[in-house]
Amino acid sequence: MEFMTGVRKTEPLELSELLGDDYVGQQVKVNGAIHTIRHMGEVAFVVLRKREGLLQCVYEEGAADFLLKELKEAATVEVTGVLEKEDRAPGGRELRLKSVKILSLPDAAMPLAIAKWKLHTSLEAKLNMRSVSLRNVRERAKFKLQEGLVRGFRDFLYAQGFTEIHTPKIGAKSAEGGSNLFRLDYFHRPAVLQQSPQLYKQMMVGVFDRVFETAPVFRAEKHNTKRHLNEYTSLDLEMGYIEGFEDIMAMETGFLQYAMDLLKREYAKELQIWKVTIPKTDRIPAVRFDRAKELVSEKYSRRIRNPFDLEPEEELLIGRYFKEEYDADFVFVTHYPSKKRPFYAMDDPEDSRYTLSFDLLYHGLEITTGGQRIHDYQMLKEKLEKRGMTEEGLEQYLDTFRYGMPPHGGLGIGLERLTMQLVGEDNVRETTLYPRDLSRLEP
Amino acid sequence: MEFMTGVRKTEPLELSELLGDDYVGQQVKVNGAIHTIRHMGEVAFVVLRKREGLLQCVYEEGAADFLLKELKEAATVEVTGVLEKEDRAPGGRELRLKSVKILSLPDAAMPLAIAKWKLHTSLEAKLNMRSVSLRNVRERAKFKLQEGLVRGFRDFLYAQGFTEIHTPKIGAKSAEGGSNLFRLDYFHRPAVLQQSPQLYKQMMVGVFDRVFETAPVFRAEKHNTKRHLNEYTSLDLEMGYIEGFEDIMAMETGFLQYAMDLLKREYAKELQIWKVTIPKTDRIPAVRFDRAKELVSEKYSRRIRNPFDLEPEEELLIGRYFKEEYDADFVFVTHYPSKKRPFYAMDDPEDSRYTLSFDLLYHGLEITTGGQRIHDYQMLKEKLEKRGMTEEGLEQYLDTFRYGMPPHGGLGIGLERLTMQLVGEDNVRETTLYPRDLSRLEP
Repeated sequence: MEFMTGVRKTEPLELSELLGDDYVGQQVKVNGAIHTIRHMGEVAFVVLRKREGLLQCVYEEGAADFLLKELKEAATVEVTGVLEKEDRAPGGRELRLKSVKILSLPDAAMPLAIAKWKLHTSLEAKLNMRSVSLRNVRERAKFKLQEGLVRGFRDFLYAQGFTEIHTPKIGAKSAEGGSNLFRLDYFHRPAVLQQSPQLYKQMMVGVFDRVFETAPVFRAEKHNTKRHLNEYTSLDLEMGYIEGFEDIMAMETGFLQYAMDLLKREYAKELQIWKVTIPKTDRIPAVRFDRAKELVSEKYSRRIRNPFDLEPEEELLIGRYFKEEYDADFVFVTHYPSKKRPFYAMDDPEDSRYTLSFDLLYHGLEITTGGQRIHDYQMLKEKLEKRGMTEEGLEQYLDTFRYGMPPHGGLGIGLERLTMQLVGEDNVRETTLYPRDLSRLEP
Repeated sequence: MEFMTGVRKTEPLELSELLGDDYVGQQVKVNGAIHTIRHMGEVAFVVLRKREGLLQCVYEEGAADFLLKELKEAATVEVTGVLEKEDRAPGGRELRLKSVKILSLPDAAMPLAIAKWKLHTSLEAKLNMRSVSLRNVRERAKFKLQEGLVRGFRDFLYAQGFTEIHTPKIGAKSAEGGSNLFRLDYFHRPAVLQQSPQLYKQMMVGVFDRVFETAPVFRAEKHNTKRHLNEYTSLDLEMGYIEGFEDIMAMETGFLQYAMDLLKREYAKELQIWKVTIPKTDRIPAVRFDRAKELVSEKYSRRIRNPFDLEPEEELLIGRYFKEEYDADFVFVTHYPSKKRPFYAMDDPEDSRYTLSFDLLYHGLEITTGGQRIHDYQMLKEKLEKRGMTEEGLEQYLDTFRYGMPPHGGLGIGLERLTMQLVGEDNVRETTLYPRDLSRLEP
């Protein structure tokens, strides 16, 4: 009988092992994909692509027991050679090739010059050939940073006593209803894809006090802009026993501080590749919605067209204002108009035209919507009635409040938008692995 | 201007703070939901439910500045009192109540006796009233253990050099095709919900070498059994540069070892609540599919009806056999018949009726399917042709191989099934927050 006893250390070494001093001067085995081959007369540089970066190998005629022409770009190989220090090579290491074992060969020449530092290719082409274009080291680095953000979200919240939940994406009814729902047939019953885990995470506050979820959400919106997706990853949290919606903004600030520290600690290489300037998170200004509109109207001589709505250009100007006046990368805009918020939002008891809610702008783009929710059963029923909404399909949601719920609130963060602003891309599709939009359903 | 500077420490204390010695004899504030009130004549026990557990409070007439009747079960409160040591109370602490601030009141009496240790309620009723039934401390503990498992999966894989990815759930085509797909209208185009991230995670192996995803998958199967769900959380990984499919089984063994350690370290309370016996993960036997069938046929005098299929009862017997003969909780069954595996599975070069694949059984239930995949472009095209499958919709997937791919493989773990086997439930709906099955689309 064979037994599995755990992860096996394999003989080929990883890049981080090669960059230390342990193996200099020694014969080692390394595997990877042949990223590029540069012929220089008697010698050739064969660059291996590994998950941690690139390794320069040197092929010298006579020194190796194989012919250079056996190697092909995009082949995957296991090579043996002697590791040497070489200041001009990436990472300061170079491998003098002795022998090779071909693991796999490509069937065609690469359609994109992935070995160039910047991939000079249209967004369309990049997305059509995602599994090739992301082999470019700079392109793939965006998604390592994205990993750092979602990982930071979870690790921070575990430490803050949150419980991770998994709520269903197929349902009979969704949080905000309306026209932006994808509809499907569920064993001959009409069903929708959830546009948000909103109702579920609220229901779970009565169980776990603090919950979070990192999962896809689906919006059938017919927007075709640089900042909209029809499917995206939402970082959601919901917390009970709050004293006010400021507690939720404070929690998000804490997350951002934690995430930026994590990036600096564990993703320094990727930050460097994108020359990311870590945004300031120590003091994030919070400004009322109506006041923010006034401030940008005054400073940039812009007429307020609709006092109850915020246009994308106004968001940009608010971002600019707070960068200029306070050197702030983020700004919380609070007290959004009640009309613009869903039924479950808590109205401001001092002025019910506004809500105890907020958006977070990052360099002038909304990356978060959050706020306090109604926790009183009767107040919730009245709000539904006032909006002319039916209770049908909301029975179990409403019952949750009937049987007692603490004051609570939460937020949702768009992961792809947060990544986009961090690296400074100008289209959210650039920071989405496989974007879904009005025209794109493949690959 | 107001500024957010990070998480604010609130005055009310958490249970873990109260269980230490720092606050004994002191006046403290605590918030929570009133789990139950037990009247004992002159005094009453008011038990608060908090996210970390229960806190016993004592109400004594004259000692408190409020009347007992002001308190109601399911109300949420912030109480002030003096903390005392009390061996008979849960956690050895008791709070002598002085004053109360009511945060919220319920609108109706609780429909379930959630304060009982075991909730004697049908599964149907529990699921219909999920946000109430999970307020039972034992019920909710299952989902903390579930959190520990998914958290362990991610933390282990980050450390093993895997990159986390987020692949789209709406697509034009899915991995295995066939009849078990939910279909929807995507802006007047036919689309499906992904039954697995299979094709995407393979495509990303060419980019990141090692990837994982923890996300929902959707299966329109008309099974109505205790182990099937139509939507579940799949823990998926895919890794390149493997020497054989044993590397994948070794990685899964490593994950299980890590996860069980994490549970013991961070989820001891929940393990205790469910009296979980941690399964053995140090040596997991691996047995060939055909050999496993023979072994149980011999030992339990069971006729082999179909040599190329494994019935659920056979899985149970394999689990029993390895428990009896090797005291094993898990067993890898390897070399599944090619007919039973999808087109991308790598056939065994020594006998192409079988594949280089495996299932992992936990106490006789399949919780994982995995294996080595075809990485050669021509071999993949031939397999598609042999199966009479079209390449339509698979263009970008196939191109990935055309431009070179390392030998690779991976697996998918059903999170709800893994949780079910760990706590010893007999229906996977018991370990699913909001199950979706043939008849259940709500709540």
